[in-house]
Formats: sequence, structure tokens, C-alpha cells
Amino acid sequence: MIFPGKVLIAQGGGPTAVINQSLVGAVLEARKFAQVTKVYGAISGVNGIVNENFYDLTRETTHNLEQVAMTPSSALLSTRDKPDEKYCKEIFTVLKAHDIRYFFYIGGNDSADTVRIVNQQAKISNYELRAIHIPKTIDNDLMINDHTPGYGSAAKYITNAFIGSNLDNRALPGIYIGVVMGRHAGFLAAASALAKKYEDDGPHLVYLPERVFSIEQFLVDVKNVYDKHGRCVIAVSEGIQDEKGVPIITSLMEKVEKDAHGNIQLSGTGALGDLLCKYIRDNLNIKRVRSDTLGYPQRCFMGCVSDVDRNEAREVGEKAAQFALWDNVDGSITIHRTGHYSVDYRLTQLDAVAGKTKVMPDAFINSACNNVTEAFLNYARPLLGSDMHYAHRLRAPKIPKILYK
Amino acid sequence: MIFPGKVLIAQGGGPTAVINQSLVGAVLEARKFAQVTKVYGAISGVNGIVNENFYDLTRETTHNLEQVAMTPSSALLSTRDKPDEKYCKEIFTVLKAHDIRYFFYIGGNDSADTVRIVNQQAKISNYELRAIHIPKTIDNDLMINDHTPGYGSAAKYITNAFIGSNLDNRALPGIYIGVVMGRHAGFLAAASALAKKYEDDGPHLVYLPERVFSIEQFLVDVKNVYDKHGRCVIAVSEGIQDEKGVPIITSLMEKVEKDAHGNIQLSGTGALGDLLCKYIRDNLNIKRVRSDTLGYPQRCFMGCVSDVDRNEAREVGEKAAQFALWDNVDGSITIHRTGHYSVDYRLTQLDAVAGKTKVMPDAFINSACNNVTEAFLNYARPLLGSDMHYAHRLRAPKIPKILYK
Repeated sequence: MIFPGKVLIAQGGGPTAVINQSLVGAVLEARKFAQVTKVYGAISGVNGIVNENFYDLTRETTHNLEQVAMTPSSALLSTRDKPDEKYCKEIFTVLKAHDIRYFFYIGGNDSADTVRIVNQQAKISNYELRAIHIPKTIDNDLMINDHTPGYGSAAKYITNAFIGSNLDNRALPGIYIGVVMGRHAGFLAAASALAKKYEDDGPHLVYLPERVFSIEQFLVDVKNVYDKHGRCVIAVSEGIQDEKGVPIITSLMEKVEKDAHGNIQLSGTGALGDLLCKYIRDNLNIKRVRSDTLGYPQRCFMGCVSDVDRNEAREVGEKAAQFALWDNVDGSITIHRTGHYSVDYRLTQLDAVAGKTKVMPDAFINSACNNVTEAFLNYARPLLGSDMHYAHRLRAPKIPKILYK
Repeated sequence: MIFPGKVLIAQGGGPTAVINQSLVGAVLEARKFAQVTKVYGAISGVNGIVNENFYDLTRETTHNLEQVAMTPSSALLSTRDKPDEKYCKEIFTVLKAHDIRYFFYIGGNDSADTVRIVNQQAKISNYELRAIHIPKTIDNDLMINDHTPGYGSAAKYITNAFIGSNLDNRALPGIYIGVVMGRHAGFLAAASALAKKYEDDGPHLVYLPERVFSIEQFLVDVKNVYDKHGRCVIAVSEGIQDEKGVPIITSLMEKVEKDAHGNIQLSGTGALGDLLCKYIRDNLNIKRVRSDTLGYPQRCFMGCVSDVDRNEAREVGEKAAQFALWDNVDGSITIHRTGHYSVDYRLTQLDAVAGKTKVMPDAFINSACNNVTEAFLNYARPLLGSDMHYAHRLRAPKIPKILYK
């Protein structure tokens, strides 16, 4: 039996460029169902739920929802709160008080875990609640999913940044290191490899957290590339670790700042890039060594959204509403590749996604542990969408010298 | 009298997203003139001239030139060589040996100075040479010009980055500092202000090298914004200086790296952003303080070119060929605003542009020295081009609380 009642939707964790597509997909779809009495939006994720901070999204215009859908970063705002059992009980209390029967939470594996716990509590209390996790993360690290909404646009940003940095480095040769987000999963750093078109293009080296990073081997790799091309473009994941699993950056920071989840804070500082540059300068006789830590534009850059990513983010939101309201089931929406290139969506058990992290499969990483494989490029390229542009070079003949000075 | 002979074109200094539009504009226009026997392109700027490394661009297809025009960064590659009188004599010797009668150099104020010296030497030697400087720089710091090709696209990148960072910061509040390129001129950092749409949007503070930066006043400014909005987004130019004209970053770096021009190396390191973050954390009781040093993507990001900038970059190249080949004159192409929004191009004496730096006029900077004025926004907005998108917010009514816990 389909229960009449309210829908509540919230957004959690780090924002993405397309997270509002999922919000709007779920809201517009939910508003079509007669048994939905209202559609609420929680302000600032689970924090807004326990504090009863809700928008009435039933009274938002369709036009403005469409405008919001095109806007990066959580329109309902977000939170770093990571609910424990007690916090989830408070969530559940509020859901009951407001007669909420459908709960959609857009987020990563932490958010999936919150949905799982709240759903358990509803079952224990015999309260009819459909709870569905809607995936999003630029890290692309959710289990079961072929890929996640948010990754395609972040990957497109990284690809465009490395196309530019490779061209810049080709015009004014030297060593360039771009440090890319990704604590445990290297998918985003790997996307830099999509920038390569001509044989001598960068990135020439790509280092991922899935493989042990040896600073000695790094130096050998860089020297080899530099000797061959007179320059070297390198993508490094912020999460690279040594053989003991210690982040390379950790040994360098006097005081390691931690976030609310107890994770080490790796973003928002140039320390890793600066360290690697200094190490190269100290050990190889190369003058022009530069690094960028690519930072927040990776998540929410305005002008560079993948249309494939946008459409899929929209659909996972729609599918959440459809599964809950047509099929009366709980779970996590997952994306599955069905062709080159097409996808379909399924509902997966929450505990298969919640709290777990997917990393790059072995088939996507080369044996030298310093680049991606063709298999990764084939996997990732469609996610950049339909309007990618790549570099072109002059092909004119050279002129014979006259003076030979 | 119009001399028959060859055209030589080169690109110097830091690349931009549209510098190849100017190259292609000049090449295609020059190829139309009967007195032009060949069109050469020097590989790696003036370095390619003294070493006689030339492409024959007369034999490049129009189609490929159009593809190259859409590609960021110098297709002819670049150089950091800054020619002195002796170096310019070598250039002149090569020009004579190859019967080059028209010399176009795309670059900033250093490149304009090279054109000026080579032109002088041709005059002294009674050698018929038309030498024209074609403007480019993301810094927007060339005299006489209303603005420079390359600035609009870099400004568009900065605007899009700050639209995203502001949304991100709004979703997960705290302090965000974005460090923007610009050693002496603050035009690029100022472009961050174009990201602001709603009244409480960031950037809330913009610090420019044209004004003395007081670290104490900075703290007061940040605290005021944070107390009001619970968050603060800040744009800082990499070139900010104290009251003695000493760059803020200098006091912090044990060893200051210098580039080939003897300039202090400010880019490619997160030191300034990290310092400012640490200073805020140490002095204000705010937990979430992050910085990005926006780095190389500012110059050559692939996916975010301004169409206005692209068209103007094309036209300055075309105009250079027209002035030299129709009018038989020397100088620097300059851009002049003739309406809102339209421009025209003039030929300006080389010594009015060469080696000089334009900075932000007083009318563009607010009296508190921590933001731009409406006048700047009106000046800069048309340069972003026709396809800018801005953020939209939900406007739905709030729901009354039930539990009030």
C-alpha cells in the first residue's frame, strides 16, 4: 500500500556542480503524485532536519527550480554533521512529527549510511517510511555504481585544466605538478589523462592513492620524461601514500588539521605540491618547476558542466521519487552502464553502498604505477559530455636556416 | 611605397586562452596581400628568431589555422628571453638575412619594447621594416588600451571560479581565500567581484596590489564580514604589498625564487594563501578557513573562453596586418571602447606602450581599499562575453516548526 504523506529531501557532504539536478529531479517527480501532500527541503542537510528547518518546495515555481538545477553546489545548503545512532533517532522523531513518509538524501557513502540507520529505526518503530539515498560525489567512490553524478563535471574541469596546463608547459617548458582532489580514490586525478591528445602531450605521469608512492621512483620517472621531452606535466592525487599507508603530505605538516569526521585535511593548502617541487629542484638540475593545488573549483566551477553528468544527476533524482512512490521500496539509486554510451538505474540495498569506498580497479592503472590505462580512458571519456574541445597544433613545414649562427 | 617581402610573426611571454586568435588573424590577413612573399612563424618567440627556427605558415591550411585559433596557449610556443640591445641586433640580422619586411610580435609590455628596439635598429640601418606589436596579457596592464586580449577569458575563468567557491562556501560556511594572479595590476583579482549576484554573495572582500595591504585591517575586515554573514569569501591578488612596497609573501619565504626577468616568483605556490589562513585561524576563533592559489588554469583553461575576447584577439591580429600592409606604418595595436559595448582599434606609438604598466584607476577601487566599485563592474562585465551563467537560489517559504527542541 502506498502511504499518503510528505516528502522530505536533503543534500549532504561536499557539493558538486550537478547536485541540484538531483534535487530538482526528485522534487518535480514527487510533486506529480497524488499521495504526496507536501514536498519539504531540509536546510543544511541532516542538521536542518533535527532543527526542523524546512522549505516548502511544493510552493517553489517550476521555472525557478529549473534555474536552480543549472546552479552548482547544494541549493539546500549542506552540513558536515555525520549522524550517529542518537542523531538518527532525532531525525526520525522529526520525520514522524511532520508526517514525513518519503525521505530522500542526496550524498556520498556517509549520507547513504544515515539513510540506512534512519530506515532501520522506522522499521523497528513500525513507522511507514520510504528512505532512498541519491548518489553524488566528485570522488566517484561509491560501490555498485559504474560512476557517480558529480564526477563527470569534476572530471571535465580537471581535463580542461590539464589541457591548458599542458599547452602552457609546452610553450614555456619545465616541470608542472597539478595536485588533484581524492583522498582514497584516484578517479579524479586519473581524469587528467583525458587531456592528452598528441603523443608527447602531458600529463606524462599520473600518481594515484591506490598505489604506493615512492619519492625515489617519482624522481626517476620525472627525470626520464624530462630527458625525453624537455618538460614534464604531472598529475598527483592529494591522497598519495607511502608503503606504510601514511599520506605523503603528513610527514611535512607540523600540525595536521582534521575535519569533523576525523579525516586528515588535505585540500586548501599547497603543501604537497610545494614539497614535490622542492624535492625535484633539490635533486634534479631543473630550473622551472611549478605546482598548482587545484582546489575548490574542482567541485563547483560554474562554466564547465558535463551534459551527460547533468542529465544523469537529474535522472537519479527522478528515479528516487519513482522507486519510492510507484514501488514503495527503500534503497540507494545506482548507475549501471548498459552500452557505449548509455546507462540505466537500479535500486540497490543501502548496506551495499553505505559507509563503503570504491577505488580504482587494477585494470585502470598501469603496471609502472605512474599512469592510467586505455581501459580507464575508454571508461571515463563519455562522462565528459558532448561539448569537449581539444588542442590543435600547427603542422606547417620548417624553413631552412641561412645564417647557422 | 609598399615593400614586397616576407612577414614574420612570433608570440612572447605568458600564454593566454586567445593568443592564437591574434596569430591566425594576422596570418590569414597577411596571406591576402600580393606583396607578401611568405608568412613565417618564429618558434619560441624571439629565441626562435635569433636561432632561425621558422615555420612556413603560408603552407598551413586555413582549416587547421582555424582549429589552432580555438586552442589556448601560444601555438608557436613562447620564451621568457627578454632581449637587450645586443639581442635585438641579432634579431635584426636574421630579419635582414631572410628578407623579412613585416614583423608582428604578440605579447605584453616587454614584447612591445622588443618591437620598439628592433624597429629603431631598422630605421638606423635604413632597412625597410614594418614592426607592429599585437597586445596580449591576462593582466590587462598595457597602457593606452581600454583592456587587453586575454584578459576577458582569464576574467571569465576567475568569475566562474568565484561563483562556484561562493556557492560552496555558502553550503559549507567558513572563510575562503582565493589568491589570484597579478603582480602589479589588480584587474584579474578584481574580476572575482563579477561573481557576486545576491546581496550576501561573495567575494565579500577584494584586495588589490594598487592599495597598501595592512594585515591588521585585513583581520578587522574579515571579522566584520564573518560576524554579519557567518562566512567570508575573499579574493587576494598575489602581488599585495605592505606600506613599504614589500610583497606580503616576501617576508614569509626563506628563499625567494626569481624568474629570468629578476622578478619575484609569486605563482605556483600556496604560501600566501596558507599564511593568510594561518593568520586568521590564529587570531579569530574560526575553524573552517581554506585557501586556493588559483594558478595556471587562469591563463589557459580550455573550456571557458569569452567570445568577446576571442573576437577582439582575432581583430588585433588582423588590424596589425592591415596597418602594416595597407598603411605602411609601425606601432602597437590598441583597443578603444566606443560604446556599451563596442570597440575600435588604433595604432599607437610603441614607446607609449613598451615597458610600461597600467594599474587599476582610483575610480575602480573602493575607499575602504577592500573591494571594487560599481564603475569597475560596468567596465569589466561586457568582457566576459555572451554566455555567462549566474547562480539561482531557492525562494520557497519556510515551514513552521512543530517540536521546537
